[in-house]
Amino acid sequence: MPAEGTGMRVAVVGAGITGLAATKCCLDEGLEPTCFEQSQDIGGLWRYTEHIEASRPSLYPSVISNTSKEMSAFSDFPFPEHFPVFLPNALLLDYLRCYAERFGLRERIRFGTTVVSIRKRPDFATTGQWNVVTEAGGKQTSDVFDAVMVCTGNFSEPSLPLQCFPGIERFRGQYFHSRQYKHPDVFQGKRVLVVGMGNSGVDIAVEASRVAAKVSISTTRGAWLFGRVFDHGYPWDMVLNTRLMSLIKTNLPGPLAWWLINHKANQRFNHENYGLQPEKRWPVREPVLNDDLPSYILTGRITIKPGVKEFKDNSVLFHNCPEEEPIDIVVFCTGYMVSFPFLEESVVRVENKHASLYKYVFPTHLEKPTLAVLGLINSLGGIMPIVEMQARWVSRVFKGLCQLPAQSVMEKEVNEKKQNKVQWFGLTFDEVLKTEWLVYLDTLASLIGAKPSVLGLLCTDPWLALTIFFGPCSPYQYRLRGPGRWQGARQAILTQWDRVLKPTRTRVPAGSSSSFPSLLAVVGFLLLLAAVIFGFQ
Amino acid sequence: MPAEGTGMRVAVVGAGITGLAATKCCLDEGLEPTCFEQSQDIGGLWRYTEHIEASRPSLYPSVISNTSKEMSAFSDFPFPEHFPVFLPNALLLDYLRCYAERFGLRERIRFGTTVVSIRKRPDFATTGQWNVVTEAGGKQTSDVFDAVMVCTGNFSEPSLPLQCFPGIERFRGQYFHSRQYKHPDVFQGKRVLVVGMGNSGVDIAVEASRVAAKVSISTTRGAWLFGRVFDHGYPWDMVLNTRLMSLIKTNLPGPLAWWLINHKANQRFNHENYGLQPEKRWPVREPVLNDDLPSYILTGRITIKPGVKEFKDNSVLFHNCPEEEPIDIVVFCTGYMVSFPFLEESVVRVENKHASLYKYVFPTHLEKPTLAVLGLINSLGGIMPIVEMQARWVSRVFKGLCQLPAQSVMEKEVNEKKQNKVQWFGLTFDEVLKTEWLVYLDTLASLIGAKPSVLGLLCTDPWLALTIFFGPCSPYQYRLRGPGRWQGARQAILTQWDRVLKPTRTRVPAGSSSSFPSLLAVVGFLLLLAAVIFGFQ
Repeated sequence: MPAEGTGMRVAVVGAGITGLAATKCCLDEGLEPTCFEQSQDIGGLWRYTEHIEASRPSLYPSVISNTSKEMSAFSDFPFPEHFPVFLPNALLLDYLRCYAERFGLRERIRFGTTVVSIRKRPDFATTGQWNVVTEAGGKQTSDVFDAVMVCTGNFSEPSLPLQCFPGIERFRGQYFHSRQYKHPDVFQGKRVLVVGMGNSGVDIAVEASRVAAKVSISTTRGAWLFGRVFDHGYPWDMVLNTRLMSLIKTNLPGPLAWWLINHKANQRFNHENYGLQPEKRWPVREPVLNDDLPSYILTGRITIKPGVKEFKDNSVLFHNCPEEEPIDIVVFCTGYMVSFPFLEESVVRVENKHASLYKYVFPTHLEKPTLAVLGLINSLGGIMPIVEMQARWVSRVFKGLCQLPAQSVMEKEVNEKKQNKVQWFGLTFDEVLKTEWLVYLDTLASLIGAKPSVLGLLCTDPWLALTIFFGPCSPYQYRLRGPGRWQGARQAILTQWDRVLKPTRTRVPAGSSSSFPSLLAVVGFLLLLAAVIFGFQ
Repeated sequence: MPAEGTGMRVAVVGAGITGLAATKCCLDEGLEPTCFEQSQDIGGLWRYTEHIEASRPSLYPSVISNTSKEMSAFSDFPFPEHFPVFLPNALLLDYLRCYAERFGLRERIRFGTTVVSIRKRPDFATTGQWNVVTEAGGKQTSDVFDAVMVCTGNFSEPSLPLQCFPGIERFRGQYFHSRQYKHPDVFQGKRVLVVGMGNSGVDIAVEASRVAAKVSISTTRGAWLFGRVFDHGYPWDMVLNTRLMSLIKTNLPGPLAWWLINHKANQRFNHENYGLQPEKRWPVREPVLNDDLPSYILTGRITIKPGVKEFKDNSVLFHNCPEEEPIDIVVFCTGYMVSFPFLEESVVRVENKHASLYKYVFPTHLEKPTLAVLGLINSLGGIMPIVEMQARWVSRVFKGLCQLPAQSVMEKEVNEKKQNKVQWFGLTFDEVLKTEWLVYLDTLASLIGAKPSVLGLLCTDPWLALTIFFGPCSPYQYRLRGPGRWQGARQAILTQWDRVLKPTRTRVPAGSSSSFPSLLAVVGFLLLLAAVIFGFQ
């Protein structure tokens, strides 16, 4: 139930996942959001278009979510039971449409409206207000807003550092950034090189290998490769993103953590034998999620290569490889740049690919905390729960119900993060926009009073408490108490496995029994696991 | 080095894998083989043609071998080091061409020649000779042969039991047998049903799902699904087909075996949750090999359905499912029939899909053992080592160097096999043409004196002995001693892992160490495994 209106006007930039969550959370808190969307529809990254539009994200049609539906949902809006466990992009868009419908978000969105500039008003130090200039149908309009949520994501500006690839100017083959990729036909019969081994790189290589003459992936650093299908076939994030695991992960000393990742990752396949072993001298990097690559390597459809040393006319030389590799097409899967063309440099500083933001959200040096950047975080878990939590926190900060610490305290924390030590799949030296998913959610939830109390529940609702602690940290946990409490949260948590099994248990042989690991078995297993792990210390 | 010629004339029917091995083994034993091949080239099943030819096997272009190169090689002819671990069909054909070249097989093959009939000569009881009528260029020829090796395989005659599918006659959609399948284009935008869950069924469903609107697999019995990429990424057959594992498998009591398969299979994913759990009331069935299916199920691209109850005009009803499923195309992956059109029923009896053959090779009731059927066995392991071993044994039986037991003894054994008890992945009640791969190889090897003596080697060559016992049972083991001994066998065994790792260790990060599990580690692990397993008894 929306809180009473405060009349506070909030400009939300973008109507993708983040913008929708932001608009919804503003409404929940009784703020007055206006969402500006440059295109004619919602969905952002997740709305597939065949045509690539400038400064809009671009998907390839085969994209499937990397996180499971239970761990990706907005916290008061579970995915339908019959949806698959991992979501093809069209279904994810369907979900977003339902969300917008359910919470009346469309009437808050101004489609076809580009945000041109956001500038502090002269009296910003006292009012915290912004002048927002937008353009629609060739006409510019200027509006005053009390606060701004920037929800433009970081998949619009491709990063193509050609200067890092000597000889690229003489290469006679075709090359393009992964953003340009739509269909594998372009690779038909060609010798393909994919540079960079993130999720898109591997996806594209796999698709290319079904039609290409030859496909190689070049990776300097290597990567741990995990599958969506994890131990015993459970979704990876429902196994790894639990409160118990988070406790273990964040308390393990570095070398033990390395050993444990090494051990776990190599259970599926030995990364060294597959040419994927991450370089030890690099800090731990987030794993890549792909189910296909190992078998594609073993069957010779994809070959892993070291970093590119030099391009020649029709071939490529790799580090530590004497032979030239003939190549016809190169796909640079070299990621994206963070960019806010409508903001002044002084508002959000982007240095070396990072924006300095308190909790990855608030610029530390504004006189008033009336501008927030959402969704600029890359953690190992569902993005929707993260941006929604950010929006819940931000709207309460805007409203004055949550206070930010002093500027010096915020700056200290931001600087510490930058030099963070290597942790589990956490922060890395050169990619500070990553953090432990569950820890981050809990941190923000604490700030607004929505963090579930496992100990408290142990007395009043022990079954729920055990499910919360040992089971997957599904986002409904953050709707059990505090502002934005949702009546359906408890039920959603207790039925989360039903919704996971529904779309796949489509054939039940006669005499079949238990439907999924009973909580007792899970508890027993996890206790055993904990005992083993701590036994090693 | 071929033995001295005996002048014994052997007709080999077919120049696929089996016919090539048969021809080669005849030459090794100094026999005079003539190989009849109806098409214009070697390769049989493994020679892909875009056009489907009657009574010739038909592949789809994406077929990749299910067994690894080290476990699939002819025993004196390892695959090249740079070949991938599992072989796309074109590379497998390359290998066969090299094999034919190396051993001078082509000059023994009469291409474009169809075997029309093989009949006992009137004096068969004393001479054991056969009249072989062949047809080439419209002209029939009759020749006398001292012996016959039937190498026609069992992938030419599709089994399409439409009578088992009520209502199929009114179904208005398209349907065809998997043999007709070549490219996924036919499924573009369609709702596809794949009936039957063997290797082809799953392969076709996976390919279809990339272009189809919807893909379901209907399976009555379910199946265990294994991946080519097995524990720690090693090829499944190099892990499972070891002498130690075979010893464990063949000595486990039934229920423990079931528990162990269950446990092992469900480690990758819980078969019940994925709708794949085999029905317990059916005997253990050989597992299906596919790396893709689990993730395709979890991402909703493929749905598993129970057995078909009835076809309707535009839809299908499944057992225990109330809803009709709209379907546009049905692919029947219902296997093949054994058929020998050129033989009289009295020579090889085929009942209920099975031929009654001693050791799956010799008809039990012939007065002279001068006809053998090769390659009519479906065991969980490489087919090439099997047919080669059969050919080695058969040629020595033809030559009189090996004796078959009395007819009554052979018949007793054949009948016992038919009613065999359920074992590991071994014989099943209705599919007697399956047996434990390693046990079968050892049995035939014993008959010709080529079975390696682990105990004997332990004294003279302990490293080799340990590799043979604990490591994969690669076919080179059967060339260490006895007739057909090959000088390169020992070296081939000791370098088998090098050839496996060569094509995938294509990027070695700085400071990388061991290349594969040292034998000591393997020995330790396997001893531990054995201890655990026997500890359960």
